[in-house]
Amino acid sequence: MTKKEFQSLVQSRIMFVDGATGSNLQQRGMPTGVCPEQWILDNPEVLIELQTEFLEAGSDIIFAPTFTANRIKLAEYGMAEKLEDFNRELVGLSYEAVKRYYSRCGSNRKVYIAADLTMTGVQVQPVGPLPFEELVDVYKQQLGYILPCGVDLIVIETMMSLQECRAALLAVKETCDLPVIISLTYNEMNRTIFGTDPKTAIIVLQSMGADAVGVNCSTGPDKMIEIVREMKRYAYIPIMAKPNAGIPKLVNGKTVFPLEAEDFAAEMEEIVKAGASIVGGCCGSTPRHIKQLVERVKNIQPPAISKAHIRALTTESKTVEIPLSGPFMIVGERINPTGKKDLQAELREENMSIVSRFAEEQVALGAQVLDINVGMNGIDEKQIMLLAMQEALLAADTPLCIDSSHVEVIEAALRLYPGRALINSISLEKAKYDNLIPIAKKYGAMFILLPLSDQGMPKNLEEKKQIIHTIIDRALECGLAKEDIIVDGLVNTVGANKNASIEALETIRYCKDELQLATIIGLSNISFGLPERQFINSTFLAFAIQAGLTMAIANPSQDLLMNTAFASDLLRGVEDGAERYIDRVTMRPATISVGSANQEKPEVQNVKEEEM
Amino acid sequence: MTKKEFQSLVQSRIMFVDGATGSNLQQRGMPTGVCPEQWILDNPEVLIELQTEFLEAGSDIIFAPTFTANRIKLAEYGMAEKLEDFNRELVGLSYEAVKRYYSRCGSNRKVYIAADLTMTGVQVQPVGPLPFEELVDVYKQQLGYILPCGVDLIVIETMMSLQECRAALLAVKETCDLPVIISLTYNEMNRTIFGTDPKTAIIVLQSMGADAVGVNCSTGPDKMIEIVREMKRYAYIPIMAKPNAGIPKLVNGKTVFPLEAEDFAAEMEEIVKAGASIVGGCCGSTPRHIKQLVERVKNIQPPAISKAHIRALTTESKTVEIPLSGPFMIVGERINPTGKKDLQAELREENMSIVSRFAEEQVALGAQVLDINVGMNGIDEKQIMLLAMQEALLAADTPLCIDSSHVEVIEAALRLYPGRALINSISLEKAKYDNLIPIAKKYGAMFILLPLSDQGMPKNLEEKKQIIHTIIDRALECGLAKEDIIVDGLVNTVGANKNASIEALETIRYCKDELQLATIIGLSNISFGLPERQFINSTFLAFAIQAGLTMAIANPSQDLLMNTAFASDLLRGVEDGAERYIDRVTMRPATISVGSANQEKPEVQNVKEEEM
Ligand SMILES: [Zn+2]
Ligand SMILES: [Zn+2]
Ligand SMILES: [Zn+2]
Repeated sequence: MTKKEFQSLVQSRIMFVDGATGSNLQQRGMPTGVCPEQWILDNPEVLIELQTEFLEAGSDIIFAPTFTANRIKLAEYGMAEKLEDFNRELVGLSYEAVKRYYSRCGSNRKVYIAADLTMTGVQVQPVGPLPFEELVDVYKQQLGYILPCGVDLIVIETMMSLQECRAALLAVKETCDLPVIISLTYNEMNRTIFGTDPKTAIIVLQSMGADAVGVNCSTGPDKMIEIVREMKRYAYIPIMAKPNAGIPKLVNGKTVFPLEAEDFAAEMEEIVKAGASIVGGCCGSTPRHIKQLVERVKNIQPPAISKAHIRALTTESKTVEIPLSGPFMIVGERINPTGKKDLQAELREENMSIVSRFAEEQVALGAQVLDINVGMNGIDEKQIMLLAMQEALLAADTPLCIDSSHVEVIEAALRLYPGRALINSISLEKAKYDNLIPIAKKYGAMFILLPLSDQGMPKNLEEKKQIIHTIIDRALECGLAKEDIIVDGLVNTVGANKNASIEALETIRYCKDELQLATIIGLSNISFGLPERQFINSTFLAFAIQAGLTMAIANPSQDLLMNTAFASDLLRGVEDGAERYIDRVTMRPATISVGSANQEKPEVQNVKEEEM
Repeated sequence: MTKKEFQSLVQSRIMFVDGATGSNLQQRGMPTGVCPEQWILDNPEVLIELQTEFLEAGSDIIFAPTFTANRIKLAEYGMAEKLEDFNRELVGLSYEAVKRYYSRCGSNRKVYIAADLTMTGVQVQPVGPLPFEELVDVYKQQLGYILPCGVDLIVIETMMSLQECRAALLAVKETCDLPVIISLTYNEMNRTIFGTDPKTAIIVLQSMGADAVGVNCSTGPDKMIEIVREMKRYAYIPIMAKPNAGIPKLVNGKTVFPLEAEDFAAEMEEIVKAGASIVGGCCGSTPRHIKQLVERVKNIQPPAISKAHIRALTTESKTVEIPLSGPFMIVGERINPTGKKDLQAELREENMSIVSRFAEEQVALGAQVLDINVGMNGIDEKQIMLLAMQEALLAADTPLCIDSSHVEVIEAALRLYPGRALINSISLEKAKYDNLIPIAKKYGAMFILLPLSDQGMPKNLEEKKQIIHTIIDRALECGLAKEDIIVDGLVNTVGANKNASIEALETIRYCKDELQLATIIGLSNISFGLPERQFINSTFLAFAIQAGLTMAIANPSQDLLMNTAFASDLLRGVEDGAERYIDRVTMRPATISVGSANQEKPEVQNVKEEEM
C-alpha cells in the first residue's frame, strides 16, 4: 500500500485494526515466560486461527506477530540468531490467516498485513545505555528481514518513549516508503512513562512523516478519549485508538479484562467521535470485541483530517506553541562562545557547566526557546553540539534552536534531538538551501528562513521578499508547511543604514500580514556602533512587536529588553499579559544602569513627586 | 471692500499700493521734528498731490496719512485732544486725492483707501510699560474715528513687534470686518527688532485672521526677497512687499535713497516672483518708482495662494513646526500643581520660581512645548495663569499649551499670548465646545481635541470616532483647518481595560492615516495602578509612535521615556535622528533605577561580556 492509498482509505471510512494478540494467545494456551515468537511458531494454528477470526470480525488490518522479534528482545531468550527466520516465518503466519479468511468466507474484501515493531526493553541514551543510532539499526535490521516478505504497512506500537518512536520512524523512513502508524501507550496521567504528552507526540511524529499516530494498550476506551481528543486538536494525520478491554483485574489468579464486547463497542463509538479514524483493541479484546466494534461504527463518517499545521517546537516531553499573535517569545542567545572566553575554554574541555547554567538561567529569565551555537576553532563542532544539546535539555527541558553554519552539524543534532527543534538557519546560500530543506523535512524540524543569498545581503526590500518566496516555495515543494518556517527580519545596523529599522519592520509586517508567517529578529545588530544601545534595542523591539514580530533572539539577562517584551504583551491584551508583567517586575525589580562615564543621578529627578 | 472681494482681487492680478509718504513729504518741504499729521493738515495740497500722483502711477491702494495718528504719538506733540479731528481730516485728504485722480485722468479704475496704523512708540508689556489691553484700546480708539469716514481696508505697517501686531489686529477684528494687511519691518538679519522671524510672523498673523501679511521699509527690494520667499513658504494669504528705494545714504547732510525707479522696478519683479502679490514702495520711493514698478510687473500672473495650512506653534520669536511624520515631540507636563506641594505654595504667593525652573529644565531635557496648568483651589486661576505664562516664556522661549478647565482662563491666556499657542483641550462637553472653538479661531490657536462628551468617556471606538468627527466638522465650519487640531488618543488604564492600548493605538492610526490629523497622548494613565510603570509607559510610547503618534504630554525628566522617544526618531530614519540620539545619551548618561524593594544587581548580569 502506498502512503497515498493509505490516506485516501482512511478518509473514505473508519478503518479497523485487529484486537489483542498476547492476551488471546494466553487464553488459547500460551504460557507466560516463554519466548512468544518461539511459541507462536511452535503453535502456528493458534495465531492463524486468531487472526482469521479478526478478519472475519471485520478487521481491515492485522498485525503480523513480529512485535518483539527484534535482536535485543530475542537475545533475552537466547534466540538472536533466529532473527531473520522468525520474522520471515511470523509474517508468513499472517499470510496464512488472510488466505484462510478468503477461502473460508469467500469474501473479496481487501485486507492488509502490517509489520509490527515495538520497544526493545533496553532504554535509549541518555536515559538508558542504548545509543540512539544502535536502536535505529535494531529496527532497520528487523525491517530488513520483514520487508522482503511483503507487508502493506508498518505499525510501531505500545511505545513509551518518544525518542524510541523517532528511532523506529527513522528506521522505517530509511528502509521503505510504506505507510507507518506509530502508537504510544499512556498512563492514567495521560503521559508516557518517560513523560511525553499526547500533544507533543502527535506534533513531533507527524512532523517527521508518520502517516498516523495513535495510542494503544494501558487503559480502556473511556480513559483514552481525552488523549485522542487532545491529539486530534493538533493532528493533520489520522489518529489510531486501540485500547484494552478495560483495565485488567486479577480474578482467582487470572488476569481478567472487564469490558464486554458490547460495552467496549459503545465506548469506542465515543472515541471515533473524539477523532479516531483507525480503531481496534489491545489487551483483552477478542474477535467478538472487534465484531461488535465494526458493527457499531462502520457506518459512521470518519473524522475529517485537518489540513492546519501547528507552529510549535517541543522537547521530548513538552510543547511550546508559537502562535502568530500570542505572547511575544524570546529565544535565549547566550549559549554561543562568540566573545565568551570562559565558555570557549569549557567547550574545549568538553565541560558543559556553563552551557547548563546558561540554559537554566535563560529559561528562568523568560526564554521559551534556547539557541545553541558552539561554533569555534579547535573543537569537533558536531560532537560538542551533541553534548551541549543534551546538557541544555537536561538542565532546562526547553526546545532548542540548533545554530550552526555547518550542514552536517545541524543534521547530526536534529537526528539526535528527541523532539521538534528549530534550525538556525536556512538561507538561499546554495550549500544550506539544497541540503537543509530536505533535512528539515526528514527530521520534522522548523527552520529560520534567513533572507540572504550567495550574493550576500539583499540589495533592497524587493530582493529580500524574492529570496523569502524562493525559499518558501522550495520548502512547500519538499512537503513542509508555512507553519514550519520562521522568517528572520534580517536587521541591519541603523548607524550604517538609516532605513534599517524601517526595512526590517516592513519585512515583519509583510511576512505576518500578507504571508501569515512567523518572524524572528536578532536585536543587537540594529544598534551596532551606537552608544547606550539598550534604549535603541528596546525601542526597536517594541516597534517590531507592534509590526507583528513573533519572537526575538536575545539575551534574556537584559532587563530593559525583557521588561519591554513583557510590557508589550500586557499592552497587546495578550492572555495573562497583565499577570505575567506583574510577576516579572515584582519578582525581578529592574536595576538598569548604563552609561560608562557619569553614574550620578541626573540633575533633574523629581520623578517620584510627580508620578501620578 | 469685503474680505472676499479683497481675496479675489489679489488673486486676479498683482495689486499695487503706494510709495513713500514721509520721505516724499520731506522732499516736498516737511521739516523734521514736526508733528507730521499737523504739518500735513496745514499743507494738505502736498499730500493730496502726492497721493494723486501715486494713483496716476498705478497704485490701486493709497494709505491714508493716519500712520501715527494714535493717542500716544499725538500726545508726544501735545495733540492728544486732536485725535478724532486729525484722523477724520487725514482720511479726507486721501478722498480728495482719489477725487482729483478721477477728475484729472478721466479714469474709472477702482482705487482704494486704506486706514494706516503703526506702532505707538511705547513698548507693550512685558518689554515696555504699556499693558496689552491698553494698546488694543489705542488702536480701537483710532479706528473708531477713522471707520465712520469710510475706508476700504486697514493697513498696519512698519511694525517691529509681533505682540503689537496682535494688539492692532485684535483691535481691527473687534471693530470692523474690513480686510487687514499687517506689515512688519525687518533688520538685515531678517528679524524684527524684537526678534520675530518672518515665518513666525506669517504663521501667527494669518492664523489670527490677517488678510495679508507683509514686510515694508528698512531695506531695499533685494534684501527683502528672502523674507518674502520665507513668508510665502508658509502663507495661505497674500504677501505684501513695500521696500525702501534701497538703503539710504547721507549725502551732503541729506538722506538719499540710492535706487532709481528702473532698478527698483527690476528688483521688485524678483520680489513678485518670490511670492509677493501686493507691492509698492516705502521710504525713498516716488511716484516714478511706482510707475516703473506697475509697468514692469502688472502683466505678471500673481503668485498662487496656497491652501496648505501649516501645523506649528510659536512664541513671539520662534516657530516650532509639528510635522505629521517628523521628529517625535514632547509636551512637558511638569508645570501643573497637582500633587506638587512646593509648586502649590509658590503659586499661592504668586511666586513663579518653580514655574521658571520647570520651564527651563523641561526644555533642556527635550520638551518642545510646555503645558501650563495652574488649576488649584484658593487662587485666582486667570491671574496666575497669565503670570505663569509670561514667566515660562521668559525662562524658556518655548511654545505653550494652555491647560485649564475654565474657558475664561484659556481665553485670557490666549489673548495675551504673544504667538500661536495650543489649547488643552476642547471636548464635546457643551461649555467647552460651544465657546472654545470660536476662541481658538479668534486667537489663531491650535487645539487638542479631547474625544469626551458630557456623557463622559466614549463607550467604544466608534463613539470616539464620532466625537472626533463632530468636533472637527464644527471647527472647519468656524474657519479652522485640520492642521489646527491635535487629537488626544484618550488613553485608558490597561489595568482596568485590557484593550486600552489597542484602542488608543487604533485612534492614533485612524487620525493619522485616514484623517491626516496630528495626535497626542498623555502617557501616565496607561499604567495606572501597575508596578514598574516606566516600562509600560515607554513600551506604550514606542507602540504609539509606531502607530503614528505626533507628540506626547509627559515628564521629560523620565529618562527611559525620553530615551525611547529619541531612539524612536533614530529608528524611524527621522532627519538628524542619529545625531540627536547620540547627543542625548552621551550628554545625559542614563541612570534608570526603579524598584522599591530589591536594589541589588540582578543575579545574572553578564551583559557586558556578552554585548556584541
Ligand atoms: Zn495491550
Ligand atoms: Zn508540517
Ligand atoms: Zn519706510
